[in-house]
Amino acid sequence: MARAIIAGSGVLPGLLLQAGSAHVVRLSGVESDPLDAPDIPARFEQFGALFADLRAAGVEELAFAGALSRPAFDPSLMDAETMALMPRVAGAMAQGDDTLLRTIAAIFEEQGFRVVGALDLRPDLVAAEGPISGGASDAQLRDAARARSVLDALGPLDVGQGAVAAKGQVIGIETLQGTDAMLRFVGMSLPGSGGVLVKRPKPGQDLRMDTPVIGPATVMKAAEAGLTGIEIAAGSVLILDRDAVETACEASGIALWAAP
Amino acid sequence: MARAIIAGSGVLPGLLLQAGSAHVVRLSGVESDPLDAPDIPARFEQFGALFADLRAAGVEELAFAGALSRPAFDPSLMDAETMALMPRVAGAMAQGDDTLLRTIAAIFEEQGFRVVGALDLRPDLVAAEGPISGGASDAQLRDAARARSVLDALGPLDVGQGAVAAKGQVIGIETLQGTDAMLRFVGMSLPGSGGVLVKRPKPGQDLRMDTPVIGPATVMKAAEAGLTGIEIAAGSVLILDRDAVETACEASGIALWAAP
Repeated sequence: MARAIIAGSGVLPGLLLQAGSAHVVRLSGVESDPLDAPDIPARFEQFGALFADLRAAGVEELAFAGALSRPAFDPSLMDAETMALMPRVAGAMAQGDDTLLRTIAAIFEEQGFRVVGALDLRPDLVAAEGPISGGASDAQLRDAARARSVLDALGPLDVGQGAVAAKGQVIGIETLQGTDAMLRFVGMSLPGSGGVLVKRPKPGQDLRMDTPVIGPATVMKAAEAGLTGIEIAAGSVLILDRDAVETACEASGIALWAAP
Repeated sequence: MARAIIAGSGVLPGLLLQAGSAHVVRLSGVESDPLDAPDIPARFEQFGALFADLRAAGVEELAFAGALSRPAFDPSLMDAETMALMPRVAGAMAQGDDTLLRTIAAIFEEQGFRVVGALDLRPDLVAAEGPISGGASDAQLRDAARARSVLDALGPLDVGQGAVAAKGQVIGIETLQGTDAMLRFVGMSLPGSGGVLVKRPKPGQDLRMDTPVIGPATVMKAAEAGLTGIEIAAGSVLILDRDAVETACEASGIALWAAP
């Protein structure tokens, strides 16, 4: 069975490649690391060509991995399949990231490809419920519960994979700009807050298409922002390099744990 | 009937003073503008003394106005009434701003004072539903609806008097740090977004104690953050200087309107 990884930026495509035989789809204009696997070059404007190339390579299973930037789209390069899909994709875009990603997954599934996710291919990279590094204080657990209540309320609106609370107050809510931007905001506007970052998927989010991840950089940025703890969702947030994450937690005094 | 304005920073205390005969309570450590009214000096540590001073001045009605910073609190200065109130105030603080403000209002009411708000004293300063400056486009109204849906979802959690959406995406959600901090975040992380700021009270918020306000500075900060529109709640957001607000809107190309 041949599998293709649709490669965005970061280390995730390489981690998924380790799960077994795979081609790497590289989209024009999307940065991705060099990987030891046969390339299938592709363009956002030419879905028809990509479907044909995947079939020619015997690909039956697809995984999307890493951040896909949205490069310039040149309408003059569109093939017929892409043109036919445009109204559907544009409609989905207007309804938020979740809807867009579900639509893209559905489009590939209708073409006969099985779409799997990082959690399917690397279940070894998620954390079970419990402490990962250090121990959480009662105050940290209360702040985590407060941040989680915000994410629960926003989930149905397709907003928010992360939130920060400190001393019972909500001091950061992730928006389109992402977790790193939220952490910079918290660090600049309330330095030394001692808060807790909660990172978990939105309820109903298609985890195959958009897997929340943390890595050593997340820990360092949380520490730089003056936080003291990170709570991730057990079973559904990928830890990119667990050894390095634990080292970063110890070096920066961040407590890290997984909650149901 | 004597009234006292408990004065925080900004122009609001002066605007409420114009509604009629009033004393001004100045809390030690809280900055407030000079005002043409008899002062009643007070301290956060000495609520008992404040109750007595208000009664001695014949005060029957109280209005809180402007931002009250939280100055250093010196436990050694506490009078007996303040000590007795501490468990209640500390418990309320842990539950968020709304609960704290409701508790403070209740404490003064139990002492026999009537607590009124800016909307009671200056109903002339709120906007009726409709355009205030310029006209909102359909895209701006859609972004406003998206931002409003976030505020509606967060309201029960006592989070969020403001949110920003652009092109259908949520790009800013107000947290403890306030509207200005959120606007700086939006401007730095997504310059030129063309988004819309929605500012409205939280559902169930005690408007007497915490009246959402906008002024010319709000308009200029929204424009600097790359926004193109502001929607406020009709009847419950105070416009601090309507002429100056309209001038700022015209100068910066910001559309401003009030929605139900």
